[in-house]
Amino acid sequence: MILDKIQKENDIQNIEKEDLPQLAGEIREFLIQKISENGGHLGSNLGVVELTMALHLSFHLPEDKMIWDVGHQSYTHKLLTGRRDGFDTLRKYGGMSGFPKRKESPCDAFDTGHSSTSISAGLGLAMASQLKGEDNYVISVIGDGSLTGGMAWEALNNASRLKRNYIIVLNDNNMSIAENVGGFSEYLNQIRTKEGYQNLKAGVENTLSRLPGRGEQLIRGIRKTKNSIKQFFVPGMLFEEMGLTYLGPYDGHNIDQLTRAFREAKQVNGAVLVHVCTQKGQGYEPAMRHPARFHGAEPFVIETGLPKKKRVKANYTDIFSTVMRKMGDREPNVVAVTAAMPDGTGLKRFRNMFPDRFFDVGIAEQHAVTFAAGLAAAGLKPVVAVYSSFLQRAYDQVIHDVCIQNLPVIFAIDRAGLVGSDGETHQGIFDLSYMSSIPNMCVMAPKNKWELSDMMKFAVHYDGPISLRYPRGEAYDGLARFRTPIEYGKWETIYDENEIALLAVGSMVKTAVEVRDRLREMGYGCTLVNARFVKPLDQEMLRTVQSEHNLLVTMEENVKAGGFGEAVLEYLNEIKSKTRMISIALPDDYVEHGNVDLLKQECGIDAESIVKKIVIEYIGLTK
Amino acid sequence: MILDKIQKENDIQNIEKEDLPQLAGEIREFLIQKISENGGHLGSNLGVVELTMALHLSFHLPEDKMIWDVGHQSYTHKLLTGRRDGFDTLRKYGGMSGFPKRKESPCDAFDTGHSSTSISAGLGLAMASQLKGEDNYVISVIGDGSLTGGMAWEALNNASRLKRNYIIVLNDNNMSIAENVGGFSEYLNQIRTKEGYQNLKAGVENTLSRLPGRGEQLIRGIRKTKNSIKQFFVPGMLFEEMGLTYLGPYDGHNIDQLTRAFREAKQVNGAVLVHVCTQKGQGYEPAMRHPARFHGAEPFVIETGLPKKKRVKANYTDIFSTVMRKMGDREPNVVAVTAAMPDGTGLKRFRNMFPDRFFDVGIAEQHAVTFAAGLAAAGLKPVVAVYSSFLQRAYDQVIHDVCIQNLPVIFAIDRAGLVGSDGETHQGIFDLSYMSSIPNMCVMAPKNKWELSDMMKFAVHYDGPISLRYPRGEAYDGLARFRTPIEYGKWETIYDENEIALLAVGSMVKTAVEVRDRLREMGYGCTLVNARFVKPLDQEMLRTVQSEHNLLVTMEENVKAGGFGEAVLEYLNEIKSKTRMISIALPDDYVEHGNVDLLKQECGIDAESIVKKIVIEYIGLTK
Repeated sequence: MILDKIQKENDIQNIEKEDLPQLAGEIREFLIQKISENGGHLGSNLGVVELTMALHLSFHLPEDKMIWDVGHQSYTHKLLTGRRDGFDTLRKYGGMSGFPKRKESPCDAFDTGHSSTSISAGLGLAMASQLKGEDNYVISVIGDGSLTGGMAWEALNNASRLKRNYIIVLNDNNMSIAENVGGFSEYLNQIRTKEGYQNLKAGVENTLSRLPGRGEQLIRGIRKTKNSIKQFFVPGMLFEEMGLTYLGPYDGHNIDQLTRAFREAKQVNGAVLVHVCTQKGQGYEPAMRHPARFHGAEPFVIETGLPKKKRVKANYTDIFSTVMRKMGDREPNVVAVTAAMPDGTGLKRFRNMFPDRFFDVGIAEQHAVTFAAGLAAAGLKPVVAVYSSFLQRAYDQVIHDVCIQNLPVIFAIDRAGLVGSDGETHQGIFDLSYMSSIPNMCVMAPKNKWELSDMMKFAVHYDGPISLRYPRGEAYDGLARFRTPIEYGKWETIYDENEIALLAVGSMVKTAVEVRDRLREMGYGCTLVNARFVKPLDQEMLRTVQSEHNLLVTMEENVKAGGFGEAVLEYLNEIKSKTRMISIALPDDYVEHGNVDLLKQECGIDAESIVKKIVIEYIGLTK
Repeated sequence: MILDKIQKENDIQNIEKEDLPQLAGEIREFLIQKISENGGHLGSNLGVVELTMALHLSFHLPEDKMIWDVGHQSYTHKLLTGRRDGFDTLRKYGGMSGFPKRKESPCDAFDTGHSSTSISAGLGLAMASQLKGEDNYVISVIGDGSLTGGMAWEALNNASRLKRNYIIVLNDNNMSIAENVGGFSEYLNQIRTKEGYQNLKAGVENTLSRLPGRGEQLIRGIRKTKNSIKQFFVPGMLFEEMGLTYLGPYDGHNIDQLTRAFREAKQVNGAVLVHVCTQKGQGYEPAMRHPARFHGAEPFVIETGLPKKKRVKANYTDIFSTVMRKMGDREPNVVAVTAAMPDGTGLKRFRNMFPDRFFDVGIAEQHAVTFAAGLAAAGLKPVVAVYSSFLQRAYDQVIHDVCIQNLPVIFAIDRAGLVGSDGETHQGIFDLSYMSSIPNMCVMAPKNKWELSDMMKFAVHYDGPISLRYPRGEAYDGLARFRTPIEYGKWETIYDENEIALLAVGSMVKTAVEVRDRLREMGYGCTLVNARFVKPLDQEMLRTVQSEHNLLVTMEENVKAGGFGEAVLEYLNEIKSKTRMISIALPDDYVEHGNVDLLKQECGIDAESIVKKIVIEYIGLTK
């Protein structure tokens, strides 16, 4: 196998040119094999095999700096930098990350995970090299989907000031996670489909230059204007207008063409954009046919492309999806907004039934939120469905555009809590804190699948900004018989006993049931409160509960700072409560990738760890 | 006076056409007069007098919806919608806001304050009208500076999908608050300065059409490509490429030309961008000459343009400015980043001395932060100087690009706390919460001007993300003799007594001195701790202090949720402290415009309110 010759970075440069296509094939086979076993991002990685090879043939690591936007397409890069063994532990606890990590390899120049950051980071690295007089190359690889994110535009706008070489590779597969949207996507489409523009260009230049008198005058006249003739013929005019040099479009699966393109790009003084057209899922038919499904895949059967494990239980996204579909029927004012995630957030069915009332705005969380505020100001009832870690992008818009005006926007926050294998960048562990800090915002979390549905119905008739957060994965279907109607700011008592009171938020109610069972086995009386509302707190119930128990335990899947526990503590302090409280929450730290159950143990928010803590505390209290 | 005939919205439509220039003059005079008395945004408002008049002549309020990006240029709009009397209380407590407010008038379609939101909001309103089948007009007025903000790009990218009319007025004055930067600004410059492009256009078309054979073939060939001939000649090609219709550029001080342009714009199906060139400060020479100074001005003398009150004491921005200049000399790795605020943040002097190490990235906070992360990853020591309320825009970038990688970026957070007359959108009241929630982030606040300097020096040698926050206005120069060296995570004891301990953060140390004086007059022993580090807390000192006092009082100029008080409470709970604590912080609410001292009283964080609270609490404790 050719692949065996790749032991570390730059080894690919010793491979014979004629062996490169075989190497590409071996890499594809390797990736399909490994991802079919462990899960991971398939389509995006199959799309950039040749592109990555060409980059590694053209640049020298780790001196040259490659930044992978989003980063889930960096598998071939990892393979070519000596991390082949890592694929056995890909995205597993303690194993190799699915994203670039500086702590994993000096060949990973900058950590990524969220979209649209690579040009900003690349400009930082390039500008630092310029200041230090270093002559390395800096390359940012960014997808066309990521270019719909505003910060990529902010960065492009700043790229023109660079005096030294800096290479932006536009990996154009005409896709975000879902299909691309917007005027910019249309623009790239035009470039890609421009028939015979090369021929036309040659023809026009010939014609004009051969014309006597007025023809030549014309060319001069055109050249004199700043709007020079190149704009007429160069497809990447939009980028040229921004002060970048544009090269392309190139066939992203032709290594030879790509290496020649990079050779040309290296000659440019300043920022240069190399436009490369690739096919998501290239070389594996199921992934080409179902790009969204193979974006981030569970383990699958190679022959069929079907998942190995059949899901038996619905997850929260499914429940949300069903609720939205039904709500669409009953509530004509309800509209839905997503930032490039119609599948991930479960809005696809709503889109199919109510296409006019569905808005996929591209990877553009800031716009999504303020756009929703505009819809709400005009009397509609927008539901913004978004992952917890991506809503961080729109913190200011929630504060400034939604909540100051007290506009009735519903935030359906998916992937809230630990998400598992995507790791640090994707854990949804801050939303309770950042949403609770915002005046006028109401914050809820459902305990189980029925409550998600009930909360959505409540939210639709609530006149103000409101959010509900729910985790990734299987929806809890326990506690079915506890379904007291949702009332603003009111918690729900599930079990009412004495001694210890568990106040659990959302996903932690399930854990609290387990904790309570074990505590009761040990002989402790244990109340369980479903703290449906994190903001506002149910002060009345809290007052009662603290007076009737010896120990309160708050439980949340969120960092401690600014979370539910601190809010409860604040109120207890206000009413001068003397009741002991312990707060179960995530530590002040980033949480790596891995199985969610393992991560919970690691963070001390699993039932066993919690029981231990409570028992030690309670024994201390009562002795 | 013609202005007397304007009593309410749409009244301008009854003014004789020949009287409009006089009205424009009267409006200018009125604005200069009022702003010279009360302070406010002058340059931007003088720039849009004719533009606003033309809009009010062309559209009917409140049915048609006008959204003013940033909103500080809405004074003429307020004047033309019956709010003339409001200018006597402009930006004063209880008076008229300096920004559009829906609660102030039905003619204010959407609240603004931060940059680059108006297209997103406008698209929301327009899309809602489209869904509801309404035939009103929606107009967003956005400056060229605001277009450097990424969310404006996100919105532009979504504008092309609109099927109904929607008008974006690009108010192009070639300025952000400071001079504009970046490729996009260059692009607009080209349009503005394109000499005789109209002539050229006509000439070329004539020439080509007169050519026999190949000439006509050429035109047809060009027209056949999607990259049609219009791109050759139309200056707004970049916008056309994005799927918008482009009209302009127009003279923004020619009412007649503008009303004709809006008439044309109304005919467009879909989104249309009307490019209007204006002059900031038009009609008042000092404002034209010093645009940055007249951006948000203090009361001034009309004849000279000089401020009425001479500042005697330095403010924190001045101190920061001096420190940066000196640091630039001593520390060659220090570089500075601002998002369009070289003056406001005090970086101008650093820029003048170290132009290569200074980066104004435009109104682009997200890019600013990740760009800084890139600089830091390459071994430099970037200082991001930014206002507290604008850093909200980059919350995700701080979490995701700086802190996961633990990169040594320094955040100098100005305008932290209540800012006064700019009101709700600009109060810096969340930063302690959102910065403290982020793992790896260190959060400091200086008590006085010397400590700001000491903290900057500490930060430069600290190897990780670190922030310091300081308020708008005069720097405190009390407590000069208390200057113990800054040590990581260590607080400073100012006065050590018994009974009551005040733990004050940053600006509240000054207030705490006053509180302590009054308490001592009443006979209470009172310790004063300068809680320099909000994160990490000085647990050792906290443990000692709680054991030696009957009452702890935390004091911060930040909302309670997730702030300093809650962090202290959390630790006290952890160590099972029985010591009473009260937390002085801002309420869970937006704070309107007005004099900062009045606002502090209103929020209960002035010395008098705090003393009252403490005394009541303490009497309760000890009786």
